[in-house]
Amino acid sequence: MPLKPSNSIPDIVIGRLPLYLRALTHLRQEGRDVTSSHELGEKLGISSAQIRKDLSHFGGFGKQGTGYQIDFLIDRLRKVMQVNQEWRVAVVGAGHLGSAISRYRGFRDRGFRIAWVFDADPAKIGTKIDDFIVQDVANMQDIIRSNKVQIAMIAVPAEQAQQVANLLVEAGVRAILNYAPININVPPHVMVQYIDPVVHLQHMTYYLLSDE
Amino acid sequence: MPLKPSNSIPDIVIGRLPLYLRALTHLRQEGRDVTSSHELGEKLGISSAQIRKDLSHFGGFGKQGTGYQIDFLIDRLRKVMQVNQEWRVAVVGAGHLGSAISRYRGFRDRGFRIAWVFDADPAKIGTKIDDFIVQDVANMQDIIRSNKVQIAMIAVPAEQAQQVANLLVEAGVRAILNYAPININVPPHVMVQYIDPVVHLQHMTYYLLSDE
Repeated sequence: MPLKPSNSIPDIVIGRLPLYLRALTHLRQEGRDVTSSHELGEKLGISSAQIRKDLSHFGGFGKQGTGYQIDFLIDRLRKVMQVNQEWRVAVVGAGHLGSAISRYRGFRDRGFRIAWVFDADPAKIGTKIDDFIVQDVANMQDIIRSNKVQIAMIAVPAEQAQQVANLLVEAGVRAILNYAPININVPPHVMVQYIDPVVHLQHMTYYLLSDE
Repeated sequence: MPLKPSNSIPDIVIGRLPLYLRALTHLRQEGRDVTSSHELGEKLGISSAQIRKDLSHFGGFGKQGTGYQIDFLIDRLRKVMQVNQEWRVAVVGAGHLGSAISRYRGFRDRGFRIAWVFDADPAKIGTKIDDFIVQDVANMQDIIRSNKVQIAMIAVPAEQAQQVANLLVEAGVRAILNYAPININVPPHVMVQYIDPVVHLQHMTYYLLSDE
């Protein structure tokens, strides 16, 4: 994961911040004002010592014995992760998966707005997915460049994912969430994260009893 | 992650095996017979030393200088992860996401067959998603028990996820893939893994330049 200049917080800590933000947001929705590293730890399966250490990277969040002010901590984490702004996101692929992604309402209130959906299939281009009109992938690079889009999600078949990633990177995308079940290669200044449910399932079947 | 009795391989290694299997499968599809820890490392962004060490846990896969036989390694990894059999999986939630999951063809050829889709909405129960008929969640526990289903995916709204998880665990499910954007609590003998795209996006926005 590329780092900002002079960044000293380990990437593994950064990777846990979204989990803290998600748990805190749920607590606030339940009407809570204050929480503790112990409670967060129970919810997340992370030790309270680890949570205190992680959060200490970002300055004095909590006082011993009084716990964390949830609203304050949410605001601070949103600023740290830069999701106090709304990021416009491009989705490539308007099949079942791309459509489900485009319809998912959980992005918007967590900092992301899907603003474009692209596909190469003439049967899909021009059709509507909720409020979106599927755009021709031939226009993708122009749209990404002129809108300075930094984030894209890839929801195309595995064999097309690298080619799509190349186009995205060339147009200036800096962060890719890849749903295609294949690793893609990008230059060092570009980040890729992966969503592949089968990887998680196969991880778990190792531990199951083979008695089906 | 709960371990099998007398298991000595670190869970972090087990978590990488599905990535090795995926990369090897793509190489085989490209017609390749042999690969190296160096090539796998390049594809996966993992050091070749790490790959050799990981694979050495499972016995003599490769010989210095001759590389890994791809077919042999695929077979071995599939056995180790127990995906040389087909696991029947239950999906809970037949909304946009649950429907997309149920339609996704990538599960079948990697060891998983979605066999049941459940929902509580009378408007959805009895409708078809491709070949599935959406089942009433009221019958879920009976079906899971009588079919000894060990794996389930949760694709319901966040506020219902814990309740669904409780029902699944009570009926005997041992491995849950949770798509609801909330942490769920389960007993120690049950495994949970999470799919939450926003967590990945927020991880990356930390590193982006806030110039939108």
